[in-house]
Amino acid sequence: MLEKTTRMNFLYDFYQSLLTPKQRSYMSLYYLDDFSLGEIAEEYDVSRQAVYDNIKRTETMLEEYEDKLLLFQKFQERSKLIVSMKEMLKEDYPNSKAIIDAVAELEKLE
Amino acid sequence: MLEKTTRMNFLYDFYQSLLTPKQRSYMSLYYLDDFSLGEIAEEYDVSRQAVYDNIKRTETMLEEYEDKLLLFQKFQERSKLIVSMKEMLKEDYPNSKAIIDAVAELEKLE
Repeated sequence: MLEKTTRMNFLYDFYQSLLTPKQRSYMSLYYLDDFSLGEIAEEYDVSRQAVYDNIKRTETMLEEYEDKLLLFQKFQERSKLIVSMKEMLKEDYPNSKAIIDAVAELEKLE
Repeated sequence: MLEKTTRMNFLYDFYQSLLTPKQRSYMSLYYLDDFSLGEIAEEYDVSRQAVYDNIKRTETMLEEYEDKLLLFQKFQERSKLIVSMKEMLKEDYPNSKAIIDAVAELEKLE
């Protein structure tokens, strides 16, 4: 469950701009703010089942977007490379400030 | 026009997986294979206007996806940094094979 939560947090982060405002509200309360389904239902004055269905549908959509665009997968691959570049630069070329800065810029773009 | 064509080629490249098969066919004939609207209309046995409308709608969709996800913009920003890192490494640290390889890996992920 923790692993799924982490994955959904990332997918939500990458694809939230493609969701509707309601989908964003439910997902953000459920996954980021750790509200229960019942608490979200109360907040929006809808049934617990309606919230559950909406969140399940949104999770499916996020996985479909990831299948098509691979933003999370590529982010992970790039992050791994950036981490190893930072380590190599720190160890072998600690005075290469311009390159170290460029790697930091690259990291900020993620 | 040339600038628009280049931009559409890139946007198509990034977001084609979000389009329908028909949208992909028209866009790819028009932008990649340089077919005219009339030639596409003949190929698919539809009116020239239908092809034009479909392509215009698709262009708008691609721009909307870019507004939301910024994949092309971030690609350009990352590419610039990667080019400058490659130049700096080549000039100042030509023997840093492991780091040069990591940058090449990063470039392949684009």
